[in-house]
Amino acid sequence: MASPVNPPRGMRDFLPADKARRERVLSVIRDTYRSHGFDEIETPVMEDSARLHAGLGGDNEKLAFGVLKRGLTTEDFAAAKDALDLADLGLRFDLTVPLARFYATHRAALPPVFRAIQIAPVWRAERPQKGRFRQFVQCDIDIIGEAGPLAEIELITATSAALSALGLEGCTIRINDRRILFGLLNHWNVPAEQQDHALIVIDKLDKIGPEGVAAELAESGIAVEGLADALATGGWDLLDAPPAWLDVDAYRALLDLRAAVPGAELVFDPTLVRGMGYYTGTIFEVAHPSLGYSLGGGGRYDGMIGRFLGQDVPACGFSLGFERLVDLVELGQETTDAVALLHAADVPGSRLVALKSELVARGHRVRLERRPKNTKATLERLAHEGFTHFAFVDAESEADSLELRPLAG
Amino acid sequence: MASPVNPPRGMRDFLPADKARRERVLSVIRDTYRSHGFDEIETPVMEDSARLHAGLGGDNEKLAFGVLKRGLTTEDFAAAKDALDLADLGLRFDLTVPLARFYATHRAALPPVFRAIQIAPVWRAERPQKGRFRQFVQCDIDIIGEAGPLAEIELITATSAALSALGLEGCTIRINDRRILFGLLNHWNVPAEQQDHALIVIDKLDKIGPEGVAAELAESGIAVEGLADALATGGWDLLDAPPAWLDVDAYRALLDLRAAVPGAELVFDPTLVRGMGYYTGTIFEVAHPSLGYSLGGGGRYDGMIGRFLGQDVPACGFSLGFERLVDLVELGQETTDAVALLHAADVPGSRLVALKSELVARGHRVRLERRPKNTKATLERLAHEGFTHFAFVDAESEADSLELRPLAG
Repeated sequence: MASPVNPPRGMRDFLPADKARRERVLSVIRDTYRSHGFDEIETPVMEDSARLHAGLGGDNEKLAFGVLKRGLTTEDFAAAKDALDLADLGLRFDLTVPLARFYATHRAALPPVFRAIQIAPVWRAERPQKGRFRQFVQCDIDIIGEAGPLAEIELITATSAALSALGLEGCTIRINDRRILFGLLNHWNVPAEQQDHALIVIDKLDKIGPEGVAAELAESGIAVEGLADALATGGWDLLDAPPAWLDVDAYRALLDLRAAVPGAELVFDPTLVRGMGYYTGTIFEVAHPSLGYSLGGGGRYDGMIGRFLGQDVPACGFSLGFERLVDLVELGQETTDAVALLHAADVPGSRLVALKSELVARGHRVRLERRPKNTKATLERLAHEGFTHFAFVDAESEADSLELRPLAG
Repeated sequence: MASPVNPPRGMRDFLPADKARRERVLSVIRDTYRSHGFDEIETPVMEDSARLHAGLGGDNEKLAFGVLKRGLTTEDFAAAKDALDLADLGLRFDLTVPLARFYATHRAALPPVFRAIQIAPVWRAERPQKGRFRQFVQCDIDIIGEAGPLAEIELITATSAALSALGLEGCTIRINDRRILFGLLNHWNVPAEQQDHALIVIDKLDKIGPEGVAAELAESGIAVEGLADALATGGWDLLDAPPAWLDVDAYRALLDLRAAVPGAELVFDPTLVRGMGYYTGTIFEVAHPSLGYSLGGGGRYDGMIGRFLGQDVPACGFSLGFERLVDLVELGQETTDAVALLHAADVPGSRLVALKSELVARGHRVRLERRPKNTKATLERLAHEGFTHFAFVDAESEADSLELRPLAG
């Protein structure tokens, strides 16, 4: 159980080293996306409950934290049928529902094709477990208003560039098209009302293998033949002898997309599902060779952004799993020297701060530390905190004559 | 009333130009504070309700948004006596309560004197009105563990440096000490149980003037003589003939502080109150000559940070009112050129994205735009969005031969 002085269950504090690391990684991602013509926006962390529960968020809607209405009385409590009677606002569980709402609010002020960056926390009331948090950061880019493949090309190019800028070379992007998936299901004569369920089962392929998928489908009365073979089919050479289930038009579009993004390693995977039901076309997922899980993904979801606007608007997005990324990235030394000034207790504050300001003006990052009894332990701590230099300061010290000694890193 | 597609009442969306402006201002503040030896931390947006309502937040506690417990039934609703029975978490209304909780959680991992930066949103369920928001950003620096004046000196120096870096020269900092304030109240024989109320009245001095303050105090049965004179007393030359109410030790400390921060314009104001009851010593408030309101403030609050730890820990902080600052600051042109590539509809996406990537690699920020019928209107919009250059692109365009034309800003 949480002690009285921990952050809320499933949520994290970030100490200076972690916070600095997170901000540096975010700024590499943000700068790359901005260079590629995307513009950052921000929405409030809360949305009206009705919007969060409009059916755009899939299973995540159930995980929305509700925010209590103000001024409720015990009579209101007693009359409440469910949580929605008491909560008029909720914390967002993703950045896509807020984007749809934002687009409906501001469409007239946005360019005809709008390329959005959203880098922000979301909240989900999940059962806390290792690697799952109740507050975590998502990094989304979305292109709204572009119906053609240019959207996919720009999203994959920008995401690959961000991963490269972070030193995560060698990522592969599994790609598929929802139409190819549904081609498979129709080929197997899966009835329309069971197709969503079948996709959920196929989505477990990584975990339970083709036999497991076949068995679980059979349990639901979905009998398919040659499933293992079909599920194992992939690659970019299917046009010579296209399998019966292949949506050839959709496959050709993926071939064109692959040719248009020579910097990214695309792998065709006809069994890639991606969880969210709102995808309508291309879907993709990015993975690093050293990892057993994806670093992000996305796809085309033409039906959704226009929901609050009352009309269809083409849209496509790519989301990076920041919390997974941030642990993988190896950052070099910060470029600013960080200097610790170890001062005797009798040096006046005015003198210390004048010295500090002088060094700051010369481009250093500077912290004052009272000179300790155990200098060795303090210097080790400072090196661990990322300080690169230190100097001893007494009442006579001048900025010009300070001896800045390197700290072992 | 809010239309169905607006953000929640009292909360704001930020479009690209506003978001970019906010991020640039925040990064100037963050970089300045980091240079001055402060370290950024982050806490979750929610804290346990019990901690938010522990009496450290003053009147703001009433404005905390409560977050509904999970899994409540209609029986739970019916049995609830007040909102706290239904909400186990709440959104933070300031950054000081979370800092006290953070310090209690992590003290062992922090340096002996901890200089914290917190730049983050807070939420208050205020009645929406002009200039008051229900979600807004605070920029706080705090020094924990330093009992001496070095904390005040470093805080005022770093804050002045941040304001200068933002081009807000000429700010003045009104300064006082709680002990001087209570000296005044004792001189007037205000009974202990009425002193808090008297401070609330004195805090209105800016709005209702000395006569208004005297009248309102008299209404509460607090009769004082020579109040207008006392309230009008200020300046740095009181030691020659100190007024009877002056706490001379506290005043001398302010004189020393003033001498230690030659870069900041300090004004002694014995009537400066600052709202929060938790201040124990120095208090200050920063104002720009062109404004009728303060840009931020802070002070020493030695009793509070240790509350969750069960012991006293000296602490002093300075908070900048980011939402007021951000509208004042004049930012120069961004240093990166922003180029719009206006392309014909028949240029393949692969060609466009290759061109874009080439220009990005050369250091530009690049957006693709379909070449419109009305080029003039589009160029005006692009200039308004901050683009500096444009080029026309057709199927034969190459990065080396592109003609980048300047856009009128």
